[in-house]
Amino acid sequence: MGISGKWFLETVFPDLAIMLQVREVLHSGQTAYQHVDVLESRVFGRSLVLDGKTQSTERDEHLYHEALVHPAMLMHSNPRTVFIGGGGEGGTLREVLAHRSVERVVMLDLDQEVVELCRRFLPHHHQGSFDDPRVELLFQDARQYLEESRESFDVLIMDLVDPLEGGTAYRLYTEEFYRIVKSRMGAGGIMVTQSGPAGLLSFDECFTTIYKTLASIFPSTVPSQVHVPAFATLWGIILASESKLPTLTDEQVDGLVAERINKELRFYDGESHRNMFAMPRYVRQGIQQESRINRDATPVFMI
Amino acid sequence: MGISGKWFLETVFPDLAIMLQVREVLHSGQTAYQHVDVLESRVFGRSLVLDGKTQSTERDEHLYHEALVHPAMLMHSNPRTVFIGGGGEGGTLREVLAHRSVERVVMLDLDQEVVELCRRFLPHHHQGSFDDPRVELLFQDARQYLEESRESFDVLIMDLVDPLEGGTAYRLYTEEFYRIVKSRMGAGGIMVTQSGPAGLLSFDECFTTIYKTLASIFPSTVPSQVHVPAFATLWGIILASESKLPTLTDEQVDGLVAERINKELRFYDGESHRNMFAMPRYVRQGIQQESRINRDATPVFMI
Amino acid sequence: MGISGKWFLETVFPDLAIMLQVREVLHSGQTAYQHVDVLESRVFGRSLVLDGKTQSTERDEHLYHEALVHPAMLMHSNPRTVFIGGGGEGGTLREVLAHRSVERVVMLDLDQEVVELCRRFLPHHHQGSFDDPRVELLFQDARQYLEESRESFDVLIMDLVDPLEGGTAYRLYTEEFYRIVKSRMGAGGIMVTQSGPAGLLSFDECFTTIYKTLASIFPSTVPSQVHVPAFATLWGIILASESKLPTLTDEQVDGLVAERINKELRFYDGESHRNMFAMPRYVRQGIQQESRINRDATPVFMI
Amino acid sequence: MGISGKWFLETVFPDLAIMLQVREVLHSGQTAYQHVDVLESRVFGRSLVLDGKTQSTERDEHLYHEALVHPAMLMHSNPRTVFIGGGGEGGTLREVLAHRSVERVVMLDLDQEVVELCRRFLPHHHQGSFDDPRVELLFQDARQYLEESRESFDVLIMDLVDPLEGGTAYRLYTEEFYRIVKSRMGAGGIMVTQSGPAGLLSFDECFTTIYKTLASIFPSTVPSQVHVPAFATLWGIILASESKLPTLTDEQVDGLVAERINKELRFYDGESHRNMFAMPRYVRQGIQQESRINRDATPVFMI
Repeated sequence: MGISGKWFLETVFPDLAIMLQVREVLHSGQTAYQHVDVLESRVFGRSLVLDGKTQSTERDEHLYHEALVHPAMLMHSNPRTVFIGGGGEGGTLREVLAHRSVERVVMLDLDQEVVELCRRFLPHHHQGSFDDPRVELLFQDARQYLEESRESFDVLIMDLVDPLEGGTAYRLYTEEFYRIVKSRMGAGGIMVTQSGPAGLLSFDECFTTIYKTLASIFPSTVPSQVHVPAFATLWGIILASESKLPTLTDEQVDGLVAERINKELRFYDGESHRNMFAMPRYVRQGIQQESRINRDATPVFMI
Repeated sequence: MGISGKWFLETVFPDLAIMLQVREVLHSGQTAYQHVDVLESRVFGRSLVLDGKTQSTERDEHLYHEALVHPAMLMHSNPRTVFIGGGGEGGTLREVLAHRSVERVVMLDLDQEVVELCRRFLPHHHQGSFDDPRVELLFQDARQYLEESRESFDVLIMDLVDPLEGGTAYRLYTEEFYRIVKSRMGAGGIMVTQSGPAGLLSFDECFTTIYKTLASIFPSTVPSQVHVPAFATLWGIILASESKLPTLTDEQVDGLVAERINKELRFYDGESHRNMFAMPRYVRQGIQQESRINRDATPVFMI
Repeated sequence: MGISGKWFLETVFPDLAIMLQVREVLHSGQTAYQHVDVLESRVFGRSLVLDGKTQSTERDEHLYHEALVHPAMLMHSNPRTVFIGGGGEGGTLREVLAHRSVERVVMLDLDQEVVELCRRFLPHHHQGSFDDPRVELLFQDARQYLEESRESFDVLIMDLVDPLEGGTAYRLYTEEFYRIVKSRMGAGGIMVTQSGPAGLLSFDECFTTIYKTLASIFPSTVPSQVHVPAFATLWGIILASESKLPTLTDEQVDGLVAERINKELRFYDGESHRNMFAMPRYVRQGIQQESRINRDATPVFMI
Repeated sequence: MGISGKWFLETVFPDLAIMLQVREVLHSGQTAYQHVDVLESRVFGRSLVLDGKTQSTERDEHLYHEALVHPAMLMHSNPRTVFIGGGGEGGTLREVLAHRSVERVVMLDLDQEVVELCRRFLPHHHQGSFDDPRVELLFQDARQYLEESRESFDVLIMDLVDPLEGGTAYRLYTEEFYRIVKSRMGAGGIMVTQSGPAGLLSFDECFTTIYKTLASIFPSTVPSQVHVPAFATLWGIILASESKLPTLTDEQVDGLVAERINKELRFYDGESHRNMFAMPRYVRQGIQQESRINRDATPVFMI
């Protein structure tokens, strides 16, 4: 391909951007909450872009979704009820439903139109998950729902857009929100949240603050990371619980995967788990040096 | 606007390109003949892009369409029947229909789907012209139609895509085609064709060859040019006739416009006409030095 | 060439930019007044870029410099003394010196370092002009010099950077400056100034204001334009005089060129002159509608 | 910063590129072997670019150089003599010299001019390493040198440009070359080579082939990876030895670092080591599925 044609540019920093040549723009428009593009490219297949930021792509979404879902699910002894905040593409839902123990999933996405676009344009993401009878899919604010709910969950997964100023999600990364989450956890419950970029250039955008905020509330908080090509960096994922989160060996992970997951995984296994939970030194130092706590009144926004 | 988002890049040369930030991709897809994008940008409004090349934009299409249509129409003493080859946006048709003398227009565009997309997405281009009862709109090859037709026309306007290798139109720029056109001209008939870029860097891509090809067949051949921002250069338009094409003064043009055109023009008048027909020296020299004649067997393609 | 490598991007509008692939960056650095890049590309050869804006390129600078210099020089009956404000590349000087009548040229460029870089890196621009014994080259502010000078000039040529906010030149486009220029004109004297872009999208950035400002002071003010590929648009040039500027026919121009210029020109001749002085209708309308006068206290800046 | 200005574009795939805004081009030119750019940007500081591919940047070179050097050095019981192939920036040399046991380093870079440019423009890379009396710096082909040498080394480090077609280095990634390396290893000797990208999209460009080639010769071959932002992906590094390469725990690594390295490291420690040597599943699968062996006669080139 030459340079002529449609490109999607996404800034990583003000002076650094990714240029992706787009074969087709399958959808482009504004919903009640955000701007949505569904793009198709040779290298990534179909991509979902919300407010100009790539959320996931057909080519590499399994890295992110497996890394987000499976460690939290396997660290729980018997996850039967799962809450998913966000996750409109259905990839998180798909991975959750692969766990044999799961009996009920409540998934909330604020934006019904995004979910409908994903159902239509991203079949390789959701693979029919939305039709699973264990799923209750609601279109409302995750925070308000949890606040008003009396139900408790074994695992709560926050698969949200980044905490951007003026965005839909920054109130789902604050101390106040995490207290609500905590109140809705069952015994031995675990929450996990996507936590923004964790590479050398960007771990202090929001990752370290989210860690500190979670650690101020939960006795056990564990960071992890996974390399996602579409994000052009390491991506941060943080788990938190009132119970001590276990340290799993390669063999334990492989055993649990075989026992509890009813399909072949593409990324996650014992050694990938070991990679995810061995954090590069700069991130550990960044966590030590971070002093900000994310609160409703003084939120930390990503650049 | 920042750098993030959708951009349309169009090479002018291998090492020179235009970058246009796109607000929305209104349509993007393949027809039976070509790839079509309908883009919307802040600076140009809606653009039609065929096979990666901008054809016209809402903001400046009047420059091109007025410059293409009116000189040929006004140099004819009484144009009643007009043939349009191409011109799917309807802008050429719109300008032709503004001439009070016009009784019948036969317009052929190879690609019905493009015309339908233009009718739907480019209302400011066509302004309802396709519904004028004087218009016969056909979807077939202009060359074959003219070859088989027994009708003759006062003015024949070729509003075609550029002569690209593998494209749909290069057989509409050859000596053989112009002989067919000549055979379908009424007495005093005039043809005019878009002729590719005419700026310093690109006049010899196809403009000078088209001129030489026409001049080898028609006793009177006259070049002109107009600056079209969306093309980022001067654009070439060539008129040809078996009769001597008249040299019109500013006053004559202004008089004819007032007498024969039933609307206010936005670009074309006496002084704009004077500008169009005064060719920069390098183009005149390029014409003198050009030796190629465009023939079916040895076509000259644009880069 | 592929997309990899060094590119120079120049915005034309916030959402429209030119991308030029750069073979070499011959110089890049800050002077006392501005940032300077000397670039080399396949399509344009060597370019001078000041504060991120292309000033001229080896490939097409003759269009601009011939169009700036010769009409003013030939409209004067016998130009012997010439003042050049700016013009650090030496191209304007080169064209002035080609006039047999010229006895003395005073050229002022604020930025000695730019002139030295041009002498070193742009030999095809200046072609040794700086060494002509008729030239007095000074590095100081053109406005202050003219204010303090007692000398008068036959032709005064303003070959300046655009009137940008925070730039070095905006005080050389105001009513106050033009009064100073007027006071230093000999009998029948003519001034000419580069006047920014004159294409459909940008004629009202500064071109129409400069015209109105000049017309408020000089009884005879005449606009012209020339297409310069490196600027990706038509470029405006305005002449002004206390005497009536003559309207020259093609033949008169060709005669004067032959009589008074001691070299072969590449762009300028009778028909090119006719093109330059036939202004597209939108520019004429823009001039009519423009109400701003550029004054020291309320300058109009280019975007 | 806006979009205007100088940018460096580097394709990762034909349809995916990184755009880096460049503050200054400190050097740009051709040596006897390759094209060299030294760029300065806000995000990366100074970058070395050879033949259009970023080699390392001031901001993140420590990730790559520490990851390349320290595991191999620490897996050796007492590295006194070290061979470095390539590594012109001096960053690899700097890390090697931090090992207290090192008595002699022979460094060969083919391109003397590159090394001189690095010494001049990249002081934060080399930090004076070239002046250390333990270093013998030679400008010649590493393969020929090793072939003709009678010396043996404890650790041999290949810090080479990628195996590109027409490039200077592809003969330093073949079975034949690795046999030469093996013949110059002391007892318990270890070699390590940079091995190209190891992310999901690109591990099979050359990483898996280099692994298989090494594994066909050395009884012990171990892959590792590190995320380098300037490369926008995980980067592969492979170690090989005739002796069994040890598996080090976090504590062992931290102990060896404290005992044997005379400075504070920025990236490498026990947990970073654990991350480096836990390979994502797709890379392990890629290695299993790879069947190519890199040979002089049939080299595998990076895209």
